[in-house]
Amino acid sequence: MDKKNIGVGLIGLGVVAGQVAAVLTDKADELAEKVGCPLVLRKIKVLPQDLSRPQARQMPTTLFTTDDEEFFREPGIDIVVEAIGGVSPALDYHKRAIESGKHVVTSNKELIAKHGTELLALARQHGVGLQFEASVGGGIPLIAPFKHDLVANNISGIFAIINGTTNYILTMMAREGMDFASALKQAQELGYAEANPENDVEGIDANYKLAILASLAFQTQVHPQDIYREGISRLTSHDFRYARELGFAIKLLAIAKQSDDSIEARVHPVFIPADSFLAKVDGVYNCVQVEGDLVGKVLFMGEGAGASATSSAVVADIVSSARKIALGIGSISTWKAVAGKSIKPMDEIETQYYVRLNAADQTGVLAQIATVFGKNNISISSAIQPESDSKTQTAEIVIMTHPAREKAMQKALGELEKLEVVNEISNFIRVEEIEGG
Amino acid sequence: MDKKNIGVGLIGLGVVAGQVAAVLTDKADELAEKVGCPLVLRKIKVLPQDLSRPQARQMPTTLFTTDDEEFFREPGIDIVVEAIGGVSPALDYHKRAIESGKHVVTSNKELIAKHGTELLALARQHGVGLQFEASVGGGIPLIAPFKHDLVANNISGIFAIINGTTNYILTMMAREGMDFASALKQAQELGYAEANPENDVEGIDANYKLAILASLAFQTQVHPQDIYREGISRLTSHDFRYARELGFAIKLLAIAKQSDDSIEARVHPVFIPADSFLAKVDGVYNCVQVEGDLVGKVLFMGEGAGASATSSAVVADIVSSARKIALGIGSISTWKAVAGKSIKPMDEIETQYYVRLNAADQTGVLAQIATVFGKNNISISSAIQPESDSKTQTAEIVIMTHPAREKAMQKALGELEKLEVVNEISNFIRVEEIEGG
Repeated sequence: MDKKNIGVGLIGLGVVAGQVAAVLTDKADELAEKVGCPLVLRKIKVLPQDLSRPQARQMPTTLFTTDDEEFFREPGIDIVVEAIGGVSPALDYHKRAIESGKHVVTSNKELIAKHGTELLALARQHGVGLQFEASVGGGIPLIAPFKHDLVANNISGIFAIINGTTNYILTMMAREGMDFASALKQAQELGYAEANPENDVEGIDANYKLAILASLAFQTQVHPQDIYREGISRLTSHDFRYARELGFAIKLLAIAKQSDDSIEARVHPVFIPADSFLAKVDGVYNCVQVEGDLVGKVLFMGEGAGASATSSAVVADIVSSARKIALGIGSISTWKAVAGKSIKPMDEIETQYYVRLNAADQTGVLAQIATVFGKNNISISSAIQPESDSKTQTAEIVIMTHPAREKAMQKALGELEKLEVVNEISNFIRVEEIEGG
Repeated sequence: MDKKNIGVGLIGLGVVAGQVAAVLTDKADELAEKVGCPLVLRKIKVLPQDLSRPQARQMPTTLFTTDDEEFFREPGIDIVVEAIGGVSPALDYHKRAIESGKHVVTSNKELIAKHGTELLALARQHGVGLQFEASVGGGIPLIAPFKHDLVANNISGIFAIINGTTNYILTMMAREGMDFASALKQAQELGYAEANPENDVEGIDANYKLAILASLAFQTQVHPQDIYREGISRLTSHDFRYARELGFAIKLLAIAKQSDDSIEARVHPVFIPADSFLAKVDGVYNCVQVEGDLVGKVLFMGEGAGASATSSAVVADIVSSARKIALGIGSISTWKAVAGKSIKPMDEIETQYYVRLNAADQTGVLAQIATVFGKNNISISSAIQPESDSKTQTAEIVIMTHPAREKAMQKALGELEKLEVVNEISNFIRVEEIEGG
């Protein structure tokens, strides 16, 4: 190879970008050894306010520019690392970098989830790579396995705990009997949840990540809006108690399945068997279970976020891009969306259900409820009435069903709500009969 | 690229090779799509007795040869897949393939553990690749993470359940209270253990795998004979009972650690905290926990053996080699042993210990025992005397120590054995204070 060194340009100076810059500097010798020539950080495109950040003050000021034109004119940049997140202006930066023949590395899950297919096609056209291992699961290898290691498999399922914030909250609710609000508050105090937690607790973050994983695994384009999504805010301590009594754990799971030419993809809280491996993944850990026809079940687990873990993946992608540049190879894009597979509408999904409702505490109530399920062809596997309140003359009833169609269940829930004896459908949670690990 | 297709030659026709041949045939279209041109199975080098195997009878007889010369003369072979195992004659086949410019893919752990460094250097010299993902952990990506995904990390530790046979036996001993012989017999009946189980139960298989992982992780050459090794056959139901009571699980762990310029590598049964993630890995599953300075703790888990899971890794390596051939790239060998790091002698290892011994049931015994530990600067964290046998007037005593040097512990054990009041050192097991997951 002819190059004396390979130049890196960084867009953004948040905690991840700051950590990437630090690793490129601190580990310069080891990385040069691994690439075959030095990696040199040439320029960092920042916003004016970034310059007052602590990570900026440790670097020479000549490294920084607030000017897009100056950044893209810099001749020595071979690899652009985008670490600002969001679609705009990141999308423009990606296009501009790719069109000027630079390899791109990013941790931007929203951008890849929404525009990955288009950007990968553009990268292929310009003979450069676009790498995004850091967009899902921090430093846990999750993109590479689908692109390389599991390539001989037909992937049938992905079951993923892929948002550390919600897993921490659910762990606190399960272990300490906390309610959602207290667990969220604790997560915020510990820095695991943001001041505005919507992105995490409503499953938006998990939705983006699942869109990326399912697209890679099934070689098709799964858009974030194709994925059914429900957050964790309506779970209560009652649900955790019944889950435990019935032999389940509650997790926010990102689920994608493939059967024939149809795909299902959804993010919502689920009951999973307490002895399954995913049920044992607690705290801020992420864990992705992948099922393939050859490999069987394989699980990847680790810290799914944090500047340090994320920088592990970003720098690995930089090294991989740099090796290709050093070898004079352009894109070895291995991912291509094959003919679009249809996404199964949520109505057609079939799972078991846990339904918790509040009803009048009088004889014949369960019969009325059972009749509604029966009329909708939903078979009940167990019904328990664990609590009644003599003051209000109401009772809590918990029903577990056999597998049923979502459409039938929604219809049944609507009819149950109209029963005079039913005061409230307190909650319903889908059950995923994932196998024990 | 100019090639119309890429040829594969297979050496061996055991269950793994048979499955690889089946996948290459059954998934020909998908694999061609992924490589960019068809993969064609050109020749299978077999022993005469292989021809009567069921997997042989499904393939055209023209595919087979029992003659080395014919196999290596076959002009259309670009990739040689060696799946016979063992050092001889596999080593010669590898050298011959590499020297004639063919890429090599293998699942042969013994060969890679013993001759990997030499073969990788030869492959580099001849501009071809040598890939061995299938040599460790079946289809679980374990080689690729060290070569690519974790490349930005300094790896400080590997803690691996990497032999399914022994993990199955230990699971049965822990769950069902079985003794070693019964659990082994059950494992043999289920096909999880071989008729001659020595390779698994004495830790030889785990030793080879750890040699490969540690060499990659620490970028040095860790030979199988550098690794201290102990099997599981001396564990009894007593040990499992005390482990459980003390809050531990017993696992056969392959452990490698790096600190400064010294490495420790060992395979033996250990007490690990019952709430650690590895403690929850049961049955034939493999699980490898890796600790890196950036990524933190990351775990890889799945079925570590079996023809199907292993073929997943072999075919992935074939696809990866084929892509390189299609792109006209030779070896992208990323692994190089850097300056040899010294392997810490077992004597210098420091861990905590569990010691179980049988002693006379009389006053002052514990004082005598404690004196021996004290003289050797080993501090006792707990001593219990859970059982005494009034008939034989003997008592079982269990001692847990604080961290101590192996050398001091061995000396203490020798002295304890000589005490008149001590009838037998029934067992001693090292304790690994691995963190909870």
